[in-house]
Amino acid sequence: MSTHAPIRRLAVVGLGLIGGSLARALRAAGAVGSISGFDTDAEQVRQAQTLGVIDIAAASAEQAVKGADVVLVAVPVLATGAALRACAPALTPEMILTDVGSTKQSVLAAAREVFGEVPPRFVPGHPIAGTEKSGVAHSLADLFRGHRVILTPHQRQDAAAQEQVAWLWQAAGARVVTMEPQRHDQIFAATSHLPHLLAYSFVDMLGRLEGAEADLFPNAGGGFRDFTRIASSSPRMWHDILRANAQPVAELLRRQIAELQELHQLIEEQRWDALLGIFERARATRERHLARIE
Amino acid sequence: MSTHAPIRRLAVVGLGLIGGSLARALRAAGAVGSISGFDTDAEQVRQAQTLGVIDIAAASAEQAVKGADVVLVAVPVLATGAALRACAPALTPEMILTDVGSTKQSVLAAAREVFGEVPPRFVPGHPIAGTEKSGVAHSLADLFRGHRVILTPHQRQDAAAQEQVAWLWQAAGARVVTMEPQRHDQIFAATSHLPHLLAYSFVDMLGRLEGAEADLFPNAGGGFRDFTRIASSSPRMWHDILRANAQPVAELLRRQIAELQELHQLIEEQRWDALLGIFERARATRERHLARIE
Repeated sequence: MSTHAPIRRLAVVGLGLIGGSLARALRAAGAVGSISGFDTDAEQVRQAQTLGVIDIAAASAEQAVKGADVVLVAVPVLATGAALRACAPALTPEMILTDVGSTKQSVLAAAREVFGEVPPRFVPGHPIAGTEKSGVAHSLADLFRGHRVILTPHQRQDAAAQEQVAWLWQAAGARVVTMEPQRHDQIFAATSHLPHLLAYSFVDMLGRLEGAEADLFPNAGGGFRDFTRIASSSPRMWHDILRANAQPVAELLRRQIAELQELHQLIEEQRWDALLGIFERARATRERHLARIE
Repeated sequence: MSTHAPIRRLAVVGLGLIGGSLARALRAAGAVGSISGFDTDAEQVRQAQTLGVIDIAAASAEQAVKGADVVLVAVPVLATGAALRACAPALTPEMILTDVGSTKQSVLAAAREVFGEVPPRFVPGHPIAGTEKSGVAHSLADLFRGHRVILTPHQRQDAAAQEQVAWLWQAAGARVVTMEPQRHDQIFAATSHLPHLLAYSFVDMLGRLEGAEADLFPNAGGGFRDFTRIASSSPRMWHDILRANAQPVAELLRRQIAELQELHQLIEEQRWDALLGIFERARATRERHLARIE
């Protein structure tokens, strides 16, 4: 029997941008029979059904899960525990369970707390895609096309379940890679969580300067717009992510502060060649990797 | 007599992206009779002539300036003093002199040093436009179209010269605003110089983490790409700008470090609501001003 069977019934618990988009993508790929869905926000459920993203609007997570062969939990990362708990009564050992949380150690900890240990057929996942918009109304069938999805298998991981989830993301057009949960959280602390923190902090600092409204922001240019774009992301979502990955982010923030203090000292001491050296090293680093950035 | 007479002879001292683009724009607008040009890099002069950006390839700044009615100095900002000194022997009191430097107090200080006091017909300017590319070969006639140009008139400013320079930039499609040199330098320290410093520092810090090459940069996404784009700018140019505007940048960097230390403490103390509050304030600030960013 192939492990890559189409899904008879997909349950989507959490009908936001990501859950909605994966539902659309799998339907467009002919990879799924029917889709049931639930969200704690009844309006999202209503919209998901109206838009044809789901076939069955469930009244609870438990009801959505009942009879599914694959269960996708796509909720804000700090809500993962509550969502798993709500699904639990209807989950069977045969069902494949996966998620889309931006931090993976916290998700595994939540699963351990709810189930006692991480279920073998739970496959932690993280699609590297999104927009600044949220909600099922903005979901897109091609949101994941050409993007990476990271799976972080755990010690009790069932290999067939992992293969099935990898297949599911490939059907949505994504490239699947695997890594250790701990390394995942370190990498995204560095390339995603810390820059969000820096961008929020920079905009906030500027906003409190004298003349910010009058002549400071009005004179900002294109470089400023790109540098601060991520500061327009959902504060609630990033609060969740920072909180769920606090230790690696705090460690990197400590390093960043130390490096900025070094730069401040170079300026104070007028050590311009050393400053130039750092700029040159940074530019070379970015150029070397630019081609690899999606 | 109109103060907005077309230019009979424009001299461009410094044939890079900005000098070349303004020459092209004024020619395209029919605003200039002929253009002489000089650069300390002979290859730029050769290319400028081959590309038709200039009519007369001068062998020195002095020769380029001779007989011009408007002189544009478009060199890296720390080279402004040397360029003004090189032009000086051929400058007459009637000639209009302007520049494009990213910091204005340093340019006025350089003019004071070369000429004893700032010449009345010297009009300091700063176009808010550019690309990551440099050199006359990348110059474009429409580089300034729809962009701002800031003039920072000084205490001895000749009003007719200022009007003529404003007209010249308008002929190139730009919107001209004026502000105090000191305020200009504060504003750009905040909206441009500090973010460049932060972006360089962030990329440099990441580049020195373990696994940077192997799996860190390869997993960076679109948010990372935009946040770090300005770290691909010319290190030499930004070294010049930071050096020329060191005091305001150092003061803002000190504030930024203090705010990041505050964020670090919030994370350590698990004061998540306070962190969320900062994210919300930052997002609201950016959204309020987003529409105004070119």
